[in-house]
Amino acid sequence: MTTLLITGATIIDGVADKPLTDSAILIDGGRIKAIGHREALDVAPHVRTLDLAGKFVIPGLMNANVHLLVNASLETLLRFEGRYEALIEEAAQVALKAGMTTVFDTWGPRRALINVRDRIESGETVGSRIRCAGNIIGFDGPFSPDFFGKAAEIASSWFVDRVNAAWVENSGRHLMWMTPEQVGAEVSRYIERGIDFVKYGATEHGAMAAGAFLQFSERTQQAIVEAGRAAGRTVQAHSTTVEGLRMSIEAGCDLITHCNMTGPVPIPVETLDLFERTQCGAVIFPVTEAGLAHVKGAVSDLEWTMWSAGDKNARRLIGSGAPILLGNDGGVFAKELLREPWLKATWNGMPEQEALGRLATGHFAWLRAMEEKGMPAMDLLHAATRNIARAYKLDTDLGTLEVGKIADMVVLDKDPLEAADHYRSIHAVIKGGVSVDLDALPERPLLTAELAPPLEEEANFKRFLVHGTRLPGCPSCISGGH
Amino acid sequence: MTTLLITGATIIDGVADKPLTDSAILIDGGRIKAIGHREALDVAPHVRTLDLAGKFVIPGLMNANVHLLVNASLETLLRFEGRYEALIEEAAQVALKAGMTTVFDTWGPRRALINVRDRIESGETVGSRIRCAGNIIGFDGPFSPDFFGKAAEIASSWFVDRVNAAWVENSGRHLMWMTPEQVGAEVSRYIERGIDFVKYGATEHGAMAAGAFLQFSERTQQAIVEAGRAAGRTVQAHSTTVEGLRMSIEAGCDLITHCNMTGPVPIPVETLDLFERTQCGAVIFPVTEAGLAHVKGAVSDLEWTMWSAGDKNARRLIGSGAPILLGNDGGVFAKELLREPWLKATWNGMPEQEALGRLATGHFAWLRAMEEKGMPAMDLLHAATRNIARAYKLDTDLGTLEVGKIADMVVLDKDPLEAADHYRSIHAVIKGGVSVDLDALPERPLLTAELAPPLEEEANFKRFLVHGTRLPGCPSCISGGH
Amino acid sequence: MTTLLITGATIIDGVADKPLTDSAILIDGGRIKAIGHREALDVAPHVRTLDLAGKFVIPGLMNANVHLLVNASLETLLRFEGRYEALIEEAAQVALKAGMTTVFDTWGPRRALINVRDRIESGETVGSRIRCAGNIIGFDGPFSPDFFGKAAEIASSWFVDRVNAAWVENSGRHLMWMTPEQVGAEVSRYIERGIDFVKYGATEHGAMAAGAFLQFSERTQQAIVEAGRAAGRTVQAHSTTVEGLRMSIEAGCDLITHCNMTGPVPIPVETLDLFERTQCGAVIFPVTEAGLAHVKGAVSDLEWTMWSAGDKNARRLIGSGAPILLGNDGGVFAKELLREPWLKATWNGMPEQEALGRLATGHFAWLRAMEEKGMPAMDLLHAATRNIARAYKLDTDLGTLEVGKIADMVVLDKDPLEAADHYRSIHAVIKGGVSVDLDALPERPLLTAELAPPLEEEANFKRFLVHGTRLPGCPSCISGGH
Amino acid sequence: MTTLLITGATIIDGVADKPLTDSAILIDGGRIKAIGHREALDVAPHVRTLDLAGKFVIPGLMNANVHLLVNASLETLLRFEGRYEALIEEAAQVALKAGMTTVFDTWGPRRALINVRDRIESGETVGSRIRCAGNIIGFDGPFSPDFFGKAAEIASSWFVDRVNAAWVENSGRHLMWMTPEQVGAEVSRYIERGIDFVKYGATEHGAMAAGAFLQFSERTQQAIVEAGRAAGRTVQAHSTTVEGLRMSIEAGCDLITHCNMTGPVPIPVETLDLFERTQCGAVIFPVTEAGLAHVKGAVSDLEWTMWSAGDKNARRLIGSGAPILLGNDGGVFAKELLREPWLKATWNGMPEQEALGRLATGHFAWLRAMEEKGMPAMDLLHAATRNIARAYKLDTDLGTLEVGKIADMVVLDKDPLEAADHYRSIHAVIKGGVSVDLDALPERPLLTAELAPPLEEEANFKRFLVHGTRLPGCPSCISGGH
Repeated sequence: MTTLLITGATIIDGVADKPLTDSAILIDGGRIKAIGHREALDVAPHVRTLDLAGKFVIPGLMNANVHLLVNASLETLLRFEGRYEALIEEAAQVALKAGMTTVFDTWGPRRALINVRDRIESGETVGSRIRCAGNIIGFDGPFSPDFFGKAAEIASSWFVDRVNAAWVENSGRHLMWMTPEQVGAEVSRYIERGIDFVKYGATEHGAMAAGAFLQFSERTQQAIVEAGRAAGRTVQAHSTTVEGLRMSIEAGCDLITHCNMTGPVPIPVETLDLFERTQCGAVIFPVTEAGLAHVKGAVSDLEWTMWSAGDKNARRLIGSGAPILLGNDGGVFAKELLREPWLKATWNGMPEQEALGRLATGHFAWLRAMEEKGMPAMDLLHAATRNIARAYKLDTDLGTLEVGKIADMVVLDKDPLEAADHYRSIHAVIKGGVSVDLDALPERPLLTAELAPPLEEEANFKRFLVHGTRLPGCPSCISGGH
Repeated sequence: MTTLLITGATIIDGVADKPLTDSAILIDGGRIKAIGHREALDVAPHVRTLDLAGKFVIPGLMNANVHLLVNASLETLLRFEGRYEALIEEAAQVALKAGMTTVFDTWGPRRALINVRDRIESGETVGSRIRCAGNIIGFDGPFSPDFFGKAAEIASSWFVDRVNAAWVENSGRHLMWMTPEQVGAEVSRYIERGIDFVKYGATEHGAMAAGAFLQFSERTQQAIVEAGRAAGRTVQAHSTTVEGLRMSIEAGCDLITHCNMTGPVPIPVETLDLFERTQCGAVIFPVTEAGLAHVKGAVSDLEWTMWSAGDKNARRLIGSGAPILLGNDGGVFAKELLREPWLKATWNGMPEQEALGRLATGHFAWLRAMEEKGMPAMDLLHAATRNIARAYKLDTDLGTLEVGKIADMVVLDKDPLEAADHYRSIHAVIKGGVSVDLDALPERPLLTAELAPPLEEEANFKRFLVHGTRLPGCPSCISGGH
Repeated sequence: MTTLLITGATIIDGVADKPLTDSAILIDGGRIKAIGHREALDVAPHVRTLDLAGKFVIPGLMNANVHLLVNASLETLLRFEGRYEALIEEAAQVALKAGMTTVFDTWGPRRALINVRDRIESGETVGSRIRCAGNIIGFDGPFSPDFFGKAAEIASSWFVDRVNAAWVENSGRHLMWMTPEQVGAEVSRYIERGIDFVKYGATEHGAMAAGAFLQFSERTQQAIVEAGRAAGRTVQAHSTTVEGLRMSIEAGCDLITHCNMTGPVPIPVETLDLFERTQCGAVIFPVTEAGLAHVKGAVSDLEWTMWSAGDKNARRLIGSGAPILLGNDGGVFAKELLREPWLKATWNGMPEQEALGRLATGHFAWLRAMEEKGMPAMDLLHAATRNIARAYKLDTDLGTLEVGKIADMVVLDKDPLEAADHYRSIHAVIKGGVSVDLDALPERPLLTAELAPPLEEEANFKRFLVHGTRLPGCPSCISGGH
Repeated sequence: MTTLLITGATIIDGVADKPLTDSAILIDGGRIKAIGHREALDVAPHVRTLDLAGKFVIPGLMNANVHLLVNASLETLLRFEGRYEALIEEAAQVALKAGMTTVFDTWGPRRALINVRDRIESGETVGSRIRCAGNIIGFDGPFSPDFFGKAAEIASSWFVDRVNAAWVENSGRHLMWMTPEQVGAEVSRYIERGIDFVKYGATEHGAMAAGAFLQFSERTQQAIVEAGRAAGRTVQAHSTTVEGLRMSIEAGCDLITHCNMTGPVPIPVETLDLFERTQCGAVIFPVTEAGLAHVKGAVSDLEWTMWSAGDKNARRLIGSGAPILLGNDGGVFAKELLREPWLKATWNGMPEQEALGRLATGHFAWLRAMEEKGMPAMDLLHAATRNIARAYKLDTDLGTLEVGKIADMVVLDKDPLEAADHYRSIHAVIKGGVSVDLDALPERPLLTAELAPPLEEEANFKRFLVHGTRLPGCPSCISGGH
């Protein structure tokens, strides 16, 4: 790491109310040594200078909620068996290329995540800085009813258990049987395995009662938070109901993911107040206007009630005084999956520009969506940087361009305060004071690689009717798969 | 049964090329005693005279393929447990009211059908004359993979076996394991239980390979036909492929149901020639133009190929020289079933006017559909009367208005030779020389009764999201029930 | 109601530590007017006297947890459509015949239950006295994932919604989306529809995560209890985890059903203490030794862990100071259901003598099971009488043989304090001072009637291999339904 | 390939009735140049001599029915994506190591099989000589209802179509819709893609109606056979009913696989006669006594009827005059699959020694099973060698030890005519005149490799109750997944 001087750019440091227009940044040893008028800086001779006239320098973007191995389907986990770290590495590079110098992985296989995190930390590998939770406390593995339950019907028990274990270890659904004290003890043991922060399920993961069941009682949630605190970790909750939200804020969580998603019921004023009072971080999942229009055409009325409530919540949270964090469950999805028609009614089935969950672009959709909902431009920047650093208690090192902090920054061609879409105009990414070779990322494309071309045999293939196709032979055939 | 003289009407006797415009019909003892000029008839004094000036008298309509208990779903068979004969009776009355004096039930519970048939025959009950096949040889019961397989997962074994036995007896799928001789012997035993004609499956019933599997070999089909012949029964086949069609005609069948439905492959010329040469009866399932438009919008491309081929087959059969028979799997469907959205892509999901399979109206849709496809008006009449009587070898008694035959006739307000839709203008139905009180039918509405009104409790009911509803909480939720 | 004098019997009044051996009971106007030495009683001349020398008179048995319409399967609800009240009446008569003068129905269709309750109350119908909760707050209907989810795949939406509404009204799963205040308000509205007490789900009903999910937070549980209290109702919880148990006791419940069932984790000492301190009623579901042996052979190791923990809990609750209540989810099960092989690994699959859930006999199994686990004889009596009356706050009228109370009593041939099985020796049942004609019950057998004999057709029926049968044709057929 | 002289061994040449005890075999250029007394042979000096005193030399074993890629489950096809040829190569080496110098692959992915076949043929790779059919005409791919239908519910359409295409090309289920002529033309096209012989489905593959449906009519079967003959290929059928068997022999098949498996109905005498008259090859699937005992304990009565009939058929075929061929659907199964409990009721669930379908050992089980059923020792040898060569019309080159034939032979330590189990005593395998290095096989173990050891995470993993576990909380829980 050498010394570097950045000059000529408009600097939006994440601290000041306004951009600094005639300042330079001096980087040394990976950190910001000084910011100020070029002339006022104490710069050694022959220091490498980067002239960024006409560009905009902002703090490195952060993402409060990603899943570097999100595509935990049977197909992907088998195809890349033994290479999960390579998938995570690829994702960390996709994130970095998209301007995110730090990402928080809030669900994934602990050991693989930690290994990649450490390789990036040591400089062995390039990629976004990773902080990770491992499993969500209380959730079972990818091949369980909590996620892809059907996989367990078709794959061998040997593989099913192996995959589930890689995610769950001692932190799974069986904790629900336990007392608060017992759960707290298990969480402490899980923390010892090297995770950076704790995430637990306040509510269940969707497939059972659409997210309405509670995973843990208030007292158990408190025990989890205490176990986290005792180990110096921040703690966050997955919540999808208004009661789950209230419980987890009151339990003392540092942040709540997709907190605007509360089923068909809007967040009560009392809970908005609670957010403000506790300064609990609110990770919002917003949808753009175009995205909402797409969803409305693809889902049932009942489901629309829920999307609609989520949108109203997002709008009300903007003015609530809660620290708002950018997060999107961002991940890299397999190309063959994104072609499936059933995806249509989901976040990822939206048109590419609006899809929230894509690691490479979803944060840009997030910023535009929140801009549409009325969030001021500087607040958008804070949501993507400073607020996240604070919520995760990493603001000593990260989140703003201040002297002494790690020199993470993104250089944009266009002014991000003018339009949220300008965040897409990435000119350069500097992480830890070093300019990243963006063109080289990802270094070894796996999920981002093109699908293999058709086989010779596919030219001759005639697909038969799938099982259950209704034959137009019998008018009386009312059975139709019943 | 008394004597009756019908005068004044235009008589379309099903024999002459043209209507008889100044003839009367003398009925005695349930049969036609004479047809001719009023003056030429030897009529006793005080004979009851029916003046039908301006009306049109045609032979009683027949339907070559109905299912008087078609709604063999778990729900209906439980709701009407112990009352299957009442359901059949209701259907026979619906048929009679719609102008059908004779119907051929080609799939149903043998004992119940026979009992109702006999009660109608003896005059104990009013209704369309029934001739029935009982089960389709080779098919399993309603609660089997051949029909409503899921019922077997949910109902008690006791009830499942009981219902299946009522349809199947010794004639089910297990015959497929046997030699031709063994199958022939079982068919003979089944005939002894009182069925009027034999129907077997040349191909399977749709749910396994969309109808493409063969149920029986050529030799077994011949053995079944021989068993039928030996017992003086006509024999017919259920077929849904071009090869099934060829096999069953060559095996010597008297008629083939829904013979125009042959999957995606059109009937070859050789098979059309075979129809003409053998004069095997061709029961066609035609769809109206409006019906086809509806279907095209509701089914997949692959399924549409099949509907489309079926339509082409119907058109080509019209000019093929094959005796064409009206038949439509007509039945009475439960009202709650007809409200289900999944019905949309089926015969019964078409708009009411186009739906082929409704017992009360489907034959009218049949006539209009075939008229649209170019079938001459007199041929339409024959398809609905004479051709059916001949194919079933009942033309000594039925099918035309000729001296000596049973006095079955329908009186129409409008000329059926002018437009097929005029068949709907039923003024009166005379069966066995007796005028039917149409307003009284059906006497005891069950499936045709209105649905019960909502319960008091339904006013307060909030339907929860069904299992599997996709919660918009996690963008990463790509699992969606997978 | 006339006056009645009972003499000669040993009286176990549920109050005294020991039986009264030379006392008589004077009943007047349906209530106990006096108890004491025959000579000391002020008896009018010509009063009808019942000499019960050698017999044992105990308070009418009560059951804290029955389901008079427990068999809410699709098959039963269709077969008896429109006759649910008749099913409930039958069950109330089965209960009365088995010595239970009062039963508490803790899950069922509100309106039907109330109607039968009122008819019995008014004397229009004979049967056990009913107090009912209607639906369990938070649970969805019979045809939902909470109970028989598959029914919704096969029955019409019309019927599914109708049945679900009859149970759920405004009290179902959708409450889980709401705030505590909103839930409380809905409960108040539900109470207004005429239920006698409130029951809610502290934990979910088994099928999602084997009962481990929480249905409501502590605060919501408190809101439910408050809504009940405000309306003068007792409140109870369905709980199946140790944390659910703690939460519901602390929320102020009057009793907890099957409180010994807490998954694989035993109840902590703190919670046992809580029971004693709050005097919350503990409805225990105990299994006899023979029953446990049966279960162990039929379930997986993991499931056995849960049965085993449940047994340990039962034993520890005996000495805990908690008021123990007899309750067993007792109901009348359809005969065809009890023949299904998959029942083997369930409570109802145990040998008849050990099966806890049978309304006619399960309470006897309960008493024997608890006797085996060491519960003193007099405590057994209290569990089946006084404790239940107290928990439901009906001890002014019920639960013991005391002057002023309703004259409900059971006359036994054998001494119940000698052996729990002696409760089976019912000689007579007196309810409200009137002797019940036990031989006449149930008056109109429906579920208790014999199954219909086989149909004629069943003699000929050959059952085909069910779908998925593995054919021994291909050694390579490892697919086997996969 | 050099010259080799084999001396000292007992030679069972597959031609003579008795072993040759004092003969030598001279091999040159990969073929047998001479057999006779050592002294009588014209042997060049310095020829390499293999002294096999005390050993037994038999023709190279053949297997008429293997599947070198049998484990076509979703898990295996994903795990080894892109390496299917390596799996086939491994299997060909497993076969060779087990004494099979030639195997006939009767179902698999055409292109991959052909490529490996050619590499072995050219000497590029070592392995059993392969002749292959590609797909079974009329069957759909691995991820279809014909095999592992559930895979299509869980894997991406992209992968499902890709795999299915690799097996099916133009030869799948859609042929069932076609006329005989059309099917014949498709088969001709499929042959052109390089398969060695034709195999078609006379009956369906088990999962629909347990194998009882017919796939093709007699006429279509004849058209397939004609297409094969016209291209100089032998033709065989998959059949699982007595009628399927008769049809395929009459259609002119050269051999029929698992012809003794005919559901619950034994093969009629007429069909046994047909076998003898046509000399159609009968590939029998026999089970040992110990294997049958195992099966009986694991399957239902109905399934046992089928196993039992298959055994009777095997016994009767032995004396029928039909040429009997060894074949067993032999393949290499994934180790994780063989641990699944549901395997118990299948061929592969038998104890290792009795399991017919294992490529490495199943042929030994075959020989012992047939010995137990009374097949003479020399006939056993013929079934495993000469009869197969003849049925496949390859007896000019293969099947016996005769001058001019390819020098394939197996050297045994023990006399195979003494006990069938002595075939296991393989001392050496000579293929094409070259001694195989058995210890080196398989060269690159994939499916035969050991399973990976447990992950670190598995030490901490607590498996939660699977979805649907019955909670012992509610005696009324009769739903149990219903």
